[in-house]
Amino acid sequence: MADAATGSAPRESEAALRALLERIMAEAKPAAADGAVASYIPALARVPAERFGVAISFADGLEIALGDADEPFSIQSCSKIFTLAFALERIGAPLWRRVGREPSGMSFNSLILLEREGGVPRNPLINAGAIVTTDALLALEGDWADQALGRMRRLGGAESIVVDEEVYASEETHGDLNRAIAWFLKAKGNLLRPPDAALRAYFRACATAMSCRQLARAARFLIGAPLSAETGAAADPVCGAEHSRRIRAVMRTCGLYDAAGDFAYRVGLPAKSGVGGGLIAVSPGRYSVCVWSPALDAKGNSAAGQRALELLVDALEPSDRHV
Amino acid sequence: MADAATGSAPRESEAALRALLERIMAEAKPAAADGAVASYIPALARVPAERFGVAISFADGLEIALGDADEPFSIQSCSKIFTLAFALERIGAPLWRRVGREPSGMSFNSLILLEREGGVPRNPLINAGAIVTTDALLALEGDWADQALGRMRRLGGAESIVVDEEVYASEETHGDLNRAIAWFLKAKGNLLRPPDAALRAYFRACATAMSCRQLARAARFLIGAPLSAETGAAADPVCGAEHSRRIRAVMRTCGLYDAAGDFAYRVGLPAKSGVGGGLIAVSPGRYSVCVWSPALDAKGNSAAGQRALELLVDALEPSDRHV
Amino acid sequence: MADAATGSAPRESEAALRALLERIMAEAKPAAADGAVASYIPALARVPAERFGVAISFADGLEIALGDADEPFSIQSCSKIFTLAFALERIGAPLWRRVGREPSGMSFNSLILLEREGGVPRNPLINAGAIVTTDALLALEGDWADQALGRMRRLGGAESIVVDEEVYASEETHGDLNRAIAWFLKAKGNLLRPPDAALRAYFRACATAMSCRQLARAARFLIGAPLSAETGAAADPVCGAEHSRRIRAVMRTCGLYDAAGDFAYRVGLPAKSGVGGGLIAVSPGRYSVCVWSPALDAKGNSAAGQRALELLVDALEPSDRHV
Amino acid sequence: MADAATGSAPRESEAALRALLERIMAEAKPAAADGAVASYIPALARVPAERFGVAISFADGLEIALGDADEPFSIQSCSKIFTLAFALERIGAPLWRRVGREPSGMSFNSLILLEREGGVPRNPLINAGAIVTTDALLALEGDWADQALGRMRRLGGAESIVVDEEVYASEETHGDLNRAIAWFLKAKGNLLRPPDAALRAYFRACATAMSCRQLARAARFLIGAPLSAETGAAADPVCGAEHSRRIRAVMRTCGLYDAAGDFAYRVGLPAKSGVGGGLIAVSPGRYSVCVWSPALDAKGNSAAGQRALELLVDALEPSDRHV
Repeated sequence: MADAATGSAPRESEAALRALLERIMAEAKPAAADGAVASYIPALARVPAERFGVAISFADGLEIALGDADEPFSIQSCSKIFTLAFALERIGAPLWRRVGREPSGMSFNSLILLEREGGVPRNPLINAGAIVTTDALLALEGDWADQALGRMRRLGGAESIVVDEEVYASEETHGDLNRAIAWFLKAKGNLLRPPDAALRAYFRACATAMSCRQLARAARFLIGAPLSAETGAAADPVCGAEHSRRIRAVMRTCGLYDAAGDFAYRVGLPAKSGVGGGLIAVSPGRYSVCVWSPALDAKGNSAAGQRALELLVDALEPSDRHV
Repeated sequence: MADAATGSAPRESEAALRALLERIMAEAKPAAADGAVASYIPALARVPAERFGVAISFADGLEIALGDADEPFSIQSCSKIFTLAFALERIGAPLWRRVGREPSGMSFNSLILLEREGGVPRNPLINAGAIVTTDALLALEGDWADQALGRMRRLGGAESIVVDEEVYASEETHGDLNRAIAWFLKAKGNLLRPPDAALRAYFRACATAMSCRQLARAARFLIGAPLSAETGAAADPVCGAEHSRRIRAVMRTCGLYDAAGDFAYRVGLPAKSGVGGGLIAVSPGRYSVCVWSPALDAKGNSAAGQRALELLVDALEPSDRHV
Repeated sequence: MADAATGSAPRESEAALRALLERIMAEAKPAAADGAVASYIPALARVPAERFGVAISFADGLEIALGDADEPFSIQSCSKIFTLAFALERIGAPLWRRVGREPSGMSFNSLILLEREGGVPRNPLINAGAIVTTDALLALEGDWADQALGRMRRLGGAESIVVDEEVYASEETHGDLNRAIAWFLKAKGNLLRPPDAALRAYFRACATAMSCRQLARAARFLIGAPLSAETGAAADPVCGAEHSRRIRAVMRTCGLYDAAGDFAYRVGLPAKSGVGGGLIAVSPGRYSVCVWSPALDAKGNSAAGQRALELLVDALEPSDRHV
Repeated sequence: MADAATGSAPRESEAALRALLERIMAEAKPAAADGAVASYIPALARVPAERFGVAISFADGLEIALGDADEPFSIQSCSKIFTLAFALERIGAPLWRRVGREPSGMSFNSLILLEREGGVPRNPLINAGAIVTTDALLALEGDWADQALGRMRRLGGAESIVVDEEVYASEETHGDLNRAIAWFLKAKGNLLRPPDAALRAYFRACATAMSCRQLARAARFLIGAPLSAETGAAADPVCGAEHSRRIRAVMRTCGLYDAAGDFAYRVGLPAKSGVGGGLIAVSPGRYSVCVWSPALDAKGNSAAGQRALELLVDALEPSDRHV
């Protein structure tokens, strides 16, 4: 009884949209001054705070990219939505025996709830949950880290996508807290593979470098659009529509850590942030968007990125719809 | 640049929708066997577990009501979204100085986060947050409890809507935990009026009795539809579209307490539950719906009500859209 | 097989002890500059920070009192050890069904552990535990508050001991947090009498005004000494020796709230503090002592009082013994 | 002004004491039926539950040993008091910058408080605190694990004391939770050496096998007695009297994990337990005692061991003294 067509609202002309994005970029960029570039690993700390890129990919294939939209950056926790998608496609509902889907109400790397709840992470978008999800894939696919990279290349439409080896090495060196989390999961029986193996795959996914344009493309499955607008067929059937809808639900409630509620209030789109300054959001049936601005607010989300999405939604989303 | 029209997807015929709802009711009803009627106050414990009603109100005015859809029940925490709407309209953004909008990740009546966070409730849809919101209205309007009832009557379209005095008396008698919460808020300087006054207004709102049909109507402002489809004008301009969008955001992340994430995953619509067994959900631009089935699951949400909404969304919502 | 006599170590001469206390007072008094007088109720906030008194009562009846040792002050939480003693004598072991005897590791008025542990306070020396203990006495004795005062008069050896009505009124007015605790206990079924009744008796015990000399005398039962050294018989058999030993155990682990461990490390004697600046400590078989200095440290214990006891123990206690 | 002699109460005759201990052993042993042998590592799980030994070492050198008092068992957390003593002697007060001395009110291996308090363990007698203490020694002494064993041999008076290599290997294999703790400490900057190095030394100390007789001897420094009663001089000056007093204070408030308060109430002596079933207690100036019974109660402390100490204290300690 569903009417898929209704979601495809007619969009503005390319020129109008480009002008809109330029205006938004100009207005949002100063918000970066309120944030600070992540400093927990040296490789991230060196990224210039003034970088700013935005790319939007419409369901019909139109793509608009501005600023530093083609410069690769460390996707960090943006990788978690792809890991979740891969795991749901491969494993399905049994994944939820090992990880919950409730907001944590706590910082992304807290061990408190993990201990209280016996080693079952609250959701797959906090570190503990992503490590468990990665471990589940690793236990099924011996060489998961390599496969993951291959799939990100197909999703992002670029063979040039690589793991930034310097960032990866930095993650391994400075990943003590994640190592504590992994050993805790192991202690509670919720890790099938050795902590070092799960962490390696997890760190490599985080250290993948992609551009706004590539991430916006890679997220098209979340708006129900084919990867290639020309052929109408997915280059890589990431996961079915029913899974996409559910991943969006998890993004809505858990995508911005303990700022998820505030972000839902201000923006309302399913989204996922990374400490590299990336921020992906999706408007089902309409567009996927990725903004990049490295300065983070106190809760670890891109300051200017959030502002840009707020302005975008005000302009593009009818108030009685979607969000 | 928004296109309000796009939200108004053509709906099925009344006959098809009625048949659909009948099928859903038949399929969802047995789920009540997994739950138990709320027992914390005697007046609620007496409601027969087999009651089941559903009412849906479409944007264009079509209304379909089945089962016990016209039997009044205690709306309990469903009242919290209306209190929030009234407060946002009256107070606006300053309300957020006294209450947050993040999911709590904890039970609806927990004092733990409230203490950790210095008396600022996590969101307006848990008890502490609703008490603060009520207090804010009470401080501005001397006779808020009466006004609130008047507004619910106009929203629900029935002068017959009343506070169930037996339930109200029961709330006062058995409301020790809420009283603890109110005194704690007072101790932290986040209550302007005496705890007993704030609780009285809060309890009376919870003890309001309404039918599924009345609640579905009352929630029309949340889908951007006028209260009266005939005249096209709101009988009571509850709150503007921008507020409605944001209330929906809070409902999405916080509407079902610590099951909000799971509900978002399974259903995906902004919703609010009450321990009386009521469950309101809204599809922006399309319809508001209220299901009533008194047996609650372990997290305090209507068991069959959730199942009914799950089936409804599978049938009515295109997978690439809205949710 | 026990040899009670061994506890009675020969003590120094009165002159030597007086000289020692004078030296300690001079050395400890400046520590008050690091603290601040309790400000949560106006009546306490007005007490001059420079007050300093000390009284020590030896097992053989010798009493040395210096400084403001005869000025009454608000005993506040020092009352909790007497309430516990009265309750153990009256109720015995069944008291421990309603209150634990573990350190809380948290602030004295926290609700967090109370919620986690279902309304059973961690120990009788935090507010929640003292309210439960008071309630237990209240349920058995209709007029407990009056009886309690009578017993404090006999223990302190002065009919002039009274409840400071101004302080009591202030407690009632500013006792919102204790009211929250009492309602929470009620909600969890761990209060037999109405919260207001339990709080009244609790507040009146806290608001009792006594001098150092009176408190040192009143604590003699905790060192196994008769109230009246002359007659050798207790004027008021507070509780038996076996209870006394166990009350000292609770004082050791819980007497200074979340600074109990640090105090045990520095001083090592069983003790109890109050926010009025009083601090009682006991050396079993040898002496009871009360210091009063109103300026409190960050954890709510008398700053100079703790320092004085530290010096006293260094001087009076053999290092291989008692503590 | 202290009088060391006063602590040396005359003791009963050897025959009377031996008869007393035999009676206590007979009465306490059945309490083992209420407990269960630790199962978290296979090597411990194999120890027969019916083992029972007790050894008491009086200040004057008299030693009484009964039952399996000469059978070595895994000392486990009993090692923590010796590690603390060695660290206080070597490092002094600066140790307290890295570890607190408050009771935790939580399980011995919980990460919750550790996270809340930024990686500073509550006290040196929970796992996290002992790992930090071990790390502090390791950073000063390159070969700490070997030195520690040497010192335990001298303290216990037996060159035959060894690390049980099977238990040690088991600790390494099953120590996931301790590994999580160590990585967390590392992440918070409270570990100077690599987690694996600190854990190795920690695990080896836990895996040391000693008999009741050896442990009772080793604890003599805590009662202020020389190791060798004949010569009157310590074979190994573990730590000065002022440190001993303070270690006893930590044992009193923290020695039995989250049962410390209850144990203080029932027994009252400074004590330390291990999951191998060992339980050391000391009566300053009088005797040190070690009981061994492998069956643990729900909080991880020897069930019959606690009962035996309760009976011992009732018989040996004057009620107005020490405890």
